[in-house]
Amino acid sequence: MGDLQDQQFLHSKLGTPWSDGTEGVTQCPILPGETFIYKFVVDRAGTYLYHGHYGMQRAAGLYGSIIVSLPEGVSEPFSYDYDHNIILSDWYHASTNEQAAGLSAIPFVFVGEPQSLLIYGRGKYNCSLSTASGIAAGVCNTTNPECSPYSLTVVPGKTYRLRIGSLTSLSALSFEIEGHDMTVVEADGNYVEPFAIRNLYIYSGETYSVLVKADQDSSRNYWATINVVARKPATPTGLAIFNYYPNHPQKQPPTVPTTGPLWNDTTSRLAQSLAFKARQGFINTPPVTSDRVIVLLNTQNKIDGHFKWSLNNLSLILPQTPYLIALRENLTDAFVQDPPPDGYDFANYDIHSVAKNVNATSSNRIYRLRFNSTVDVILQNANSMTVNNSETHPWHLHGHDFWVLGYGTGKYNLSRDWRKYNVVNPIMKNTAPLHPYGWTALRFRADNPGVWAFHCHVESHFYMGMGVVFEEGIEKGGELPSSIRGCGESEGHHRP
Amino acid sequence: MGDLQDQQFLHSKLGTPWSDGTEGVTQCPILPGETFIYKFVVDRAGTYLYHGHYGMQRAAGLYGSIIVSLPEGVSEPFSYDYDHNIILSDWYHASTNEQAAGLSAIPFVFVGEPQSLLIYGRGKYNCSLSTASGIAAGVCNTTNPECSPYSLTVVPGKTYRLRIGSLTSLSALSFEIEGHDMTVVEADGNYVEPFAIRNLYIYSGETYSVLVKADQDSSRNYWATINVVARKPATPTGLAIFNYYPNHPQKQPPTVPTTGPLWNDTTSRLAQSLAFKARQGFINTPPVTSDRVIVLLNTQNKIDGHFKWSLNNLSLILPQTPYLIALRENLTDAFVQDPPPDGYDFANYDIHSVAKNVNATSSNRIYRLRFNSTVDVILQNANSMTVNNSETHPWHLHGHDFWVLGYGTGKYNLSRDWRKYNVVNPIMKNTAPLHPYGWTALRFRADNPGVWAFHCHVESHFYMGMGVVFEEGIEKGGELPSSIRGCGESEGHHRP
Repeated sequence: MGDLQDQQFLHSKLGTPWSDGTEGVTQCPILPGETFIYKFVVDRAGTYLYHGHYGMQRAAGLYGSIIVSLPEGVSEPFSYDYDHNIILSDWYHASTNEQAAGLSAIPFVFVGEPQSLLIYGRGKYNCSLSTASGIAAGVCNTTNPECSPYSLTVVPGKTYRLRIGSLTSLSALSFEIEGHDMTVVEADGNYVEPFAIRNLYIYSGETYSVLVKADQDSSRNYWATINVVARKPATPTGLAIFNYYPNHPQKQPPTVPTTGPLWNDTTSRLAQSLAFKARQGFINTPPVTSDRVIVLLNTQNKIDGHFKWSLNNLSLILPQTPYLIALRENLTDAFVQDPPPDGYDFANYDIHSVAKNVNATSSNRIYRLRFNSTVDVILQNANSMTVNNSETHPWHLHGHDFWVLGYGTGKYNLSRDWRKYNVVNPIMKNTAPLHPYGWTALRFRADNPGVWAFHCHVESHFYMGMGVVFEEGIEKGGELPSSIRGCGESEGHHRP
Repeated sequence: MGDLQDQQFLHSKLGTPWSDGTEGVTQCPILPGETFIYKFVVDRAGTYLYHGHYGMQRAAGLYGSIIVSLPEGVSEPFSYDYDHNIILSDWYHASTNEQAAGLSAIPFVFVGEPQSLLIYGRGKYNCSLSTASGIAAGVCNTTNPECSPYSLTVVPGKTYRLRIGSLTSLSALSFEIEGHDMTVVEADGNYVEPFAIRNLYIYSGETYSVLVKADQDSSRNYWATINVVARKPATPTGLAIFNYYPNHPQKQPPTVPTTGPLWNDTTSRLAQSLAFKARQGFINTPPVTSDRVIVLLNTQNKIDGHFKWSLNNLSLILPQTPYLIALRENLTDAFVQDPPPDGYDFANYDIHSVAKNVNATSSNRIYRLRFNSTVDVILQNANSMTVNNSETHPWHLHGHDFWVLGYGTGKYNLSRDWRKYNVVNPIMKNTAPLHPYGWTALRFRADNPGVWAFHCHVESHFYMGMGVVFEEGIEKGGELPSSIRGCGESEGHHRP
């Protein structure tokens, strides 16, 4: 699984910020052969993810789900007969070391689109060559049952809760089950007001629960598919079989699997993002105003000839000494103490064009937030270094859920666009997409003492600097465990 | 999973005797919510088991397999296409707390035969009532695929290595796959000279690898079955489906599943035990003679009205302070320092009758062995407290493999029966059966510094005192980790 490994748990980890698993932020790397125990209170039921958070280790497959059960005597506000967990991912033939080396090289070498899409860890390669029709794409005729696609067996008439998480390196996905509506009921561990969809857009780092009723013709099977959206696809449809008992689980559906919605139909994706509301009876109302607004301009840049991603022209490089240790022990030379900027040159920056000057600066500065204050973050998208191209970035905040106040297109207007916010029943999440040429407005309470990464969940983007770090209430909480030490200025080498 | 848990790994754990996981022998109990890390070198490839080793916790389901791979560049001395792992077990409706309370009660309450037999954790209850024929026994017609039996899909013409382990509480089993020969190639992590069988007798704590070729009519499926042997069965046959691709995995075979060999055909079981030889080219020859012979008479007894099992009239009760700590730190009041006897009243004890005096004594004495000496253990079976009944006991030794020198019937004759030993190519194992009214002769090198349990692997028998403890080279090796402390005279309470 590579040489070093961390874990990122998508929980709040209130009181145990050293269990967040972010190398360089909350701990030193875990060396080969070492053991590191993450211990934290799971404070809310729901569907979560964990994965390696060092270099590009996640892309090598170091990930999984965490399902937190409801306390005894409490039940979900919706009903279903069975509960299944499905991770979606993409897969490359190039090793993550190769990929990372390319990203750091001059000239820049980008691995590009994945070779396969995986459902439940299963996918196919090169099967599209076997037929022209595409029916066999991703399935291939084979006599080896170990190469067969994932098959979800359902009993006619029963309702299934599918807990779907995406841990793709790169790809935004559209997931659908042929001929079946899905009702969304949970997102990132929060209940949402149920609504029916034909396809679910899901971005890396997100989780959703959908309810699906096996109410179609039970004499056949159906395709479950994933397709790339938001980037021009070069990867075949990922396939699984929605198997009606007692048909053979591997019996091919009689239909051609969908190739999904138009990859560049941003409007449809934005509309789905806007459709989510907190569930009635479970609304956690946000503070009406905030104490601070931080606008983060998302740009692709160059630094000394290397390709980078930046926020307000600063590209994140994590320090040798993890922030959590440096801040607790006042190691002021561990990183630059000046804060990064709260905004960019709003008046003059043209988000619809390649920047006139694409050069940026490397930085390890952090945002220090007043404990218990309310913070708004406006993510502002822009043109990349390619003409007429703006990418989709799923932004993930550690240690908190945020309210998703709104999404919009074009340049966010500070004096006007806050009027578009939903402050009545906004959904809470820990990951939200920033759509091409658009903005996403988030609000959170800085109420979790510690240091927390906030970054684009595309593996290569974070690797190339697309993140910031928040600190709040660092002086609070218990003693740091020695297990997080052993690098930079943090003394000693930890032993498990 | 109950309140306390330990782990028992069936490896030698040379140099890390504190990682054996035997509560009372090598460590204190692990308290609820605590974490305990077992760390040891896996020094040989093969198929092993682990399980809770506190009270009757194993019977509650705290168990699993450990498959140790071959080092890179080394290959097995046999070939196969696919590798599958299968645990066999039995299942009770009464909780293990209830079962344990009954075993300690006056009058004695024995939980008796299990309600179900499980293959890969799957079994059925009360299905035998649904038809008279027994075909549906253990399968039941159901529209719920989650209640279906384990189905092992095979590709016609391919060869499968099945790694089969038994972790039953009580039952000795016969495993077979309808219409298919099996070739045994591994036992307890040691290569055996391949030989073909129709049914495999397997006792709790044992593992075997068998090779099975999918060479039968591939238009249908076949039953894989387990049946109770060595005790009068009251549990329906445990069923799985040996599924020929592309038949439906749950398609019922057109046949009636076998109810197995006669449960009381001891001759057939003894013959299979005797058939195992070490594999040519992998023979580890035992020392020709031993330095010490310990004969252990296996009897069922009473102590103060409680039912017990004893060795040489002593029934094991583990001390509050684990032996490993007590011996290292010379806590001489932690257990009785006098050794237990190396034999019984050979001349006068009639192994074929209920003992004239069934009373025994509780004991925490241990056998202290000279480091690096060669020790023979002769297990001697006898009549239980029931007329015309002698039970089967699978004996498991921690921390070592032993050579299985021989099996015989009747009372072992010290001056004569050693001539029957196989010292040319005996198999090495860590668990071996003692058959009714018979004897089993084992030899091992006392070359692993530490304290090691040797006990009957029937959960209730060990709970009722059926074990002994060996010490060797206690003064050697590294410092004891603090994590094993926290009970009896071992100071402090450990924190993970």
